Order: sequence, then C-alpha cells, then structure tokens
Amino acid sequence: MAERLDMRQADFDARFAALLTAKREVAQDVDAAVAEIVADVRARGDAALIDYTRRFDRHEVAADGLAVTPEEIDAAVASCDAALLDALTLAAERIEAYHGRQRPEDGRVTDKSGVETGHRWTAVDAAGLYVPGGTAAYPSSVLMNAIPAKVAGVERLVIAVPAPDGVLNPHVLVAARIAGVDEIYRVGGAQAIAALAHGTRTIAPVAKIVGPGNAYVAAAKRRVFGTVGIDMIAGPSEVLVLADGANDPSWIAADLLAQAEHDASAQSILITDDADFADAVERAVDSQLETLPRAEIAGASWRDYGAVIVAPALGDAIGLVDRLAPEHLEIAARDAEELAARVRNAGAIFLGAYTPEAVGDYVGGPNHVLPTARSARFASGLNVLDFMKRTSILRCDAAALGEIGGAAITLARAEGLEAHARSVGIRINTA
Amino acid sequence: MAERLDMRQADFDARFAALLTAKREVAQDVDAAVAEIVADVRARGDAALIDYTRRFDRHEVAADGLAVTPEEIDAAVASCDAALLDALTLAAERIEAYHGRQRPEDGRVTDKSGVETGHRWTAVDAAGLYVPGGTAAYPSSVLMNAIPAKVAGVERLVIAVPAPDGVLNPHVLVAARIAGVDEIYRVGGAQAIAALAHGTRTIAPVAKIVGPGNAYVAAAKRRVFGTVGIDMIAGPSEVLVLADGANDPSWIAADLLAQAEHDASAQSILITDDADFADAVERAVDSQLETLPRAEIAGASWRDYGAVIVAPALGDAIGLVDRLAPEHLEIAARDAEELAARVRNAGAIFLGAYTPEAVGDYVGGPNHVLPTARSARFASGLNVLDFMKRTSILRCDAAALGEIGGAAITLARAEGLEAHARSVGIRINTA
Repeated sequence: MAERLDMRQADFDARFAALLTAKREVAQDVDAAVAEIVADVRARGDAALIDYTRRFDRHEVAADGLAVTPEEIDAAVASCDAALLDALTLAAERIEAYHGRQRPEDGRVTDKSGVETGHRWTAVDAAGLYVPGGTAAYPSSVLMNAIPAKVAGVERLVIAVPAPDGVLNPHVLVAARIAGVDEIYRVGGAQAIAALAHGTRTIAPVAKIVGPGNAYVAAAKRRVFGTVGIDMIAGPSEVLVLADGANDPSWIAADLLAQAEHDASAQSILITDDADFADAVERAVDSQLETLPRAEIAGASWRDYGAVIVAPALGDAIGLVDRLAPEHLEIAARDAEELAARVRNAGAIFLGAYTPEAVGDYVGGPNHVLPTARSARFASGLNVLDFMKRTSILRCDAAALGEIGGAAITLARAEGLEAHARSVGIRINTA
Repeated sequence: MAERLDMRQADFDARFAALLTAKREVAQDVDAAVAEIVADVRARGDAALIDYTRRFDRHEVAADGLAVTPEEIDAAVASCDAALLDALTLAAERIEAYHGRQRPEDGRVTDKSGVETGHRWTAVDAAGLYVPGGTAAYPSSVLMNAIPAKVAGVERLVIAVPAPDGVLNPHVLVAARIAGVDEIYRVGGAQAIAALAHGTRTIAPVAKIVGPGNAYVAAAKRRVFGTVGIDMIAGPSEVLVLADGANDPSWIAADLLAQAEHDASAQSILITDDADFADAVERAVDSQLETLPRAEIAGASWRDYGAVIVAPALGDAIGLVDRLAPEHLEIAARDAEELAARVRNAGAIFLGAYTPEAVGDYVGGPNHVLPTARSARFASGLNVLDFMKRTSILRCDAAALGEIGGAAITLARAEGLEAHARSVGIRINTA
C-alpha cells in the first residue's frame, strides 16, 4: 500500500517534507574503481577496452572488432518485426518534428552607439551516446538521445553499448540506423565513457556525452565532466498524477503502475481532491498488479515510495507540485490547462485523461529524457540546445569604441585592472 | 618570453598538442574540508555560518547581522564616485539590452494526428550569486551574473559575499543595487554555498547557484550540484588573438597583457601570419610590462603560458582555433567576418581592431562569464536560459491517442514494459 496523506491533517507538513527528502537510491561508492578504469583507458587505449570487455562483458573482442559493422546493422533491420519497425519510424518522425522546432536562431544588431552585438549557435562537432546493455537497452531511448543531436547538426554521433556475453540488442541497432547514428562500438561501462572522452586509437574523442547508465557509468561521466560536456545524471523515474474524481480509477492506476514498473525505486504519486476516488485507484492498483509481468518491481515501488495525497481542491496542491518538481506531471482534470498554467516546476506535463505519460515515452514527440529527483526546479529535459553552444559576437568601430570605451576604462581602473584600461585607451587616443 | 611556434616547423603538431594539454592550474584537494563545512552548515545552520565567518573572515557577525541592510547599500551608493556610478549604469543598461534579446518564446502546435505538443519556459524561483571577497570582488561580474537572472524573471536573487575583516567592497553593493539584487549576505566560502543550497534560518535556499570563487567555493558547488543547479566551474581566463600584420603591434600587445594581468595562470596566445609583426608584438609586450602595476602577474602569465604562433595564412589557423576553443577570440584582420564565420569553437568573438576584449569585459553588452579551458567546444557563456527551464507539454484527445497509441503499445511491449502498454491500451479500447 502506498502512503496516504491528507492536506487537512495536522501532521501533513511534516509528512510531506519527509516524502520530499526520502532517499530512493543508495549511492554506490564506485569512485575509486572508476578512477582506475578511466586512467587505464587513457594510458592503454584499446588494449584496456579489450581487457575490461573480457572481464565485465565476458567476451573477446579485437580492436578491429570494436566497431559494429554496417552488415550487422543491416541484419538487425532485416530481422526486425515490421510492426516494430513502423512504430520506431513513426516515433522517430514525431521526435524529429518536435525537436526541429527547438532549433535556435542567430542574431546581430547594431545599436545607437554604433556597437554591433550578436550571437551565433553552433553544434558540438561530435557527441557520444551511452546505451546500457541487457534489459535496460531501450530503443526508444536511442531515438530520444540521438535525434536531438542530429537535429542540432552534430556531424559525428557515436554510440557505445555493451554486448554482454557478446550479444547486442538488435532493436538498439535498428533505432540507431533510423536515427542516423554514425558509429557504434560494442563497449560499455566506465571504460566506454573514458574512451568517448579521451579517445583511443579506434574511438575518436567526442565533445559531449549523454545517455543513462549504471553507477559506474554515472561516476565516469562526473569524472570526465570538464574534458567533455555531459547531460544530467538521471535518478529513478517518477510521476505525479493530479486527477479529479471524474476519472476512471483504472486508467489512473494503470499510469501509476507504468511508472512503478521501471524500477523498484521509481515513484508514483497521486494527488486528488476526492478521497473515495483515491480509494478506488488504490483498489485498481492492487487488482492490476495481479496480472502484471513486472508486478514484483512495480509492487515494491508502489509499496515503498508510492503516495496518495488528498487535497481540498486540486488548485490547493499547486504548491506541492512545485516543491515535488516532478519529472512527469499528468493532469487529468476538467481544468487541466488552468492548473498547468499555475505550475512552475515540472519536466513534462501531460494534459487531459487521454494523455497517459506512457504515450509520451514513445511517440508523443517531446523528449523522454527529463530532470529527476526534484531537479525540474532548475533543469530541462534533453533538447537540441544540449548539443549546441552559443558564441557571443561584439564589433566596435573607432566611433563606437569612442562612445562606450571611456566607461570601460573607468570600470577597469575601479577594479585595479590597468592593462584592461590601457588596451581600450590606446585605441581611443589613437583614433 | 612567450613560447614561439611556427605551423611550418616539423615539430609543430607535437608542440601545439603540448600547448593544448598544458595544465595551468594545480588542483587543490579541498574536498574533505568542504564536505565537513557543508555538512556542518546543514546541521547547525546560522550558527555554523557565524563560526566559519569568525575563523575564515576574521570578524564577528550575529545571525541578524548576516543580511546587508538597505542603509549600508544606500551609504555605498552615496559615497560612490559619480563617474563610476555612470559607468556601472551604462554597463547595466547595455547588458540588459543584450540579454533581453535572449528571452525565449513558448510554443504550442497541433499536428495532423490531432496531437498537441508544446513547450513552456519558466524562471527558476530563486538564484544565488557568489561574489568573491577582497581584490577579486568585481562589480562588473555582479552585473554580468545578476542581470541575466533578472531578465529571466528570477523573483528572488541573492548575493553571498565574504567581508574579510568585516569589510565589504562598496562597489559590489552599488552594482547589486543597480542590478536589482534582492538580498545580500556577508558570508563567503564553502559555507556560503552550503547555505544557498540547503538554506538556514536566515538564508532561504535557492534553486540555482552561479558565480566564480576559489577552490573551496568550486568544490562546494560541485558537491551541492543536483540539490541545486550550478554554472560551469571557471578555470583561468584566456584570450586568443588572430591578427594580421596590418595591426598596430602595441594595441595587440596591450590586449595580450589585459588577459595576462588577471592571473599568473591566465593564458594569452597570438596567432599571426607575419613573423615580423610577431616580433614587434613581443617587443611591445616587454615594453608595456615595464609600467604595468600588475607587471609581476602579467609577466608570469606571459612567460609561463603565453604563446605566439606563426601561420602561413590566418585562414590556415582555423583548425587550431577550434582545437584551442578559446574563451575569448579577438580577430583583428581585414577579413575578420569571413574568418569568424569559419570558427566553430569560441566563447566570445571580438571583431576588428577597434574591439579589444576588455571593452567586452565591461560595457559591450554580451556576458563576460564564458567557458574556459577548451570547454567552448561544448559550453556557452552565461545567459538568460541558465536561469530558466523548459517544460514540455503533450495533449491527446481520444482520436489522437487512437492514431498514435498503437505504436506506443508496440514499442512498450518490445521493451518488456507491459504496464506502459496497458496504460495506453486501457484508453484506446474504452474510447
């Protein structure tokens, strides 16, 4: 049973605060091991990758076998179920259309002082996408991570994916082909991150690394941050459903379970203004759990981290939503738009009873890589700008520098930076 | 003397690679000390701030004395030199005008399947700006960090600034007033970062922390990252000047020294197509050093990290520019625009002989907080989006979900996520 809270209870504030700060992940201390792996890959390159692959993924690979061949990808595509191929293609088209609208514009203006200012966006030259191996290898995540990079204009997009016991997930190869990935290497773990950041003879280095991974991958990303850019370190997934009593309890229960089945440390929270509806949803969760293949995981998540909060009215709960800053926010209520407009912090909002979060995981168009663990207070989902950077531009002629240069000299002297003052002054006095 | 390289020399590639990877900063291992300070501030709040302030800043402050009062700021403004006040005001106006053009737009579209997708930008609710104490307390940096936050719509903007021996830099207070900062606390170091991230009785927590600082501040920012957002960890500053022989050598020398005076580990590099011009610039640097107040610092930087590279033509050096990915790129050449258009990696570009980097430090308009240490390959200067986050929006009605839901079910089942499939299917079958 999930925890039940009521905003009208005397101890609500304390219990809600406890819910907010509950740790859902045990931090694994793998820093020392990861430091050694990264240093070894820097020192020995491909040879280190081969050794770690033998040790962790239990297969032999030669340096010239690290790259997945076009023929392997062809074979994966040829053996792919037609319905799955169609679904991946539809997802890719919709993701590309959505992210295409994120492409930023350059700009340049000349102001009344004659100073030209502007900015210019450029793509990172190469990006690496880590794809976990085994059961967590999601082809949908390949699309969600790769397509924004391609839309940004990244010329070289590289996937690193482990092949446990030598076996690659063929759906990952199909998704990579559809998304236009340029290179795929069968290497995983901290060693893959080290290779992407520092390069080896076989794998040229990239400027940005994205994608989810286990504790080793996360620690390696933190370690190489600065040498390359990284995306956010993802925590366990979470959904907050804001639903009024007019909903079908079984739909809302299904949404809570869709989140819970990801991981025993996932979190599903329902906020409703109807205590009877809350009871009905809880009963539906129990009933649906009976036939769910991943019932053990989903049940543990719901029992340990699930919560149902009853509010006097949904509008009264907006402050709670902002404090939770959920990765996913479903609003299934008649006034969904009005409620959404009042929310500040959420990674993604799903509006109305016919927008289950799961449709957004695959084919909605928006990205499913979203800020977790309350980081939607300051972070955004993965997007095209994550693969671009902005360069500012400034241009003065003699007259423009004459107009604004005096103020720069005053400020430089106030800061004790005389060489700054002189580099402006030498031009104004000559002009 | 700076190092001299020539692209035509046989050992150029090796020497350039060494220049690229030269470490200009000794990493100070302060992690253990910082971990203790952060934990102590979390546990004891204001009492810890008071203790660390006594120990590190050598003055006594009561909890109710941590906040700088409006009267103190009034006094700083009243005693501020009029020319400096005017210069700060001009700088603020120009920075605000430039950053105002960075405000992003929201969007919503309905596609042919009837699916509504969109995105919405919101400001972080509160941001903290760290301002270093003592000689590194630059009022220009207060403007550069605070104004983008205010343009973004941050409602609560807080400064933490140490007061060594109880003394605050009055120019910082003046700049904070001009920039519209809401609260100022006289506390510095890792303890200030801990207070901003976790909150104390006196200092409410923020969602994002920006601003430069020493090794303790940087380590504390890394530590609280995840609880709050942070900006990039800044390294030593650098300039790359691309100049043809038609320039006045003394102007270019002045620019190289303006960068070098920041810090003995700053780096100034000249790339030119004219070896005689290179000689003349080097002579001018030596001559200008003779009268520079910060000659010791600037001289050490130029001697230890300065470099002059002679290229057959400036266009031949674009590959070098992209590999260096300079924080500041000055292009003083007739074809400056054409050269700039070919550069991918630079934090900021200064075009033409009348645009010394120093004018951009103060009054150009673009931000002077820029990616250092080659991170312009993947990072941007501080901007309005750093204080905002994007929420994606998805809305289906029954018909739209009917159109795209089937593909979501196919993908969910391929990934072994049956509860995902059911949360879509339960709606399609009912619809």
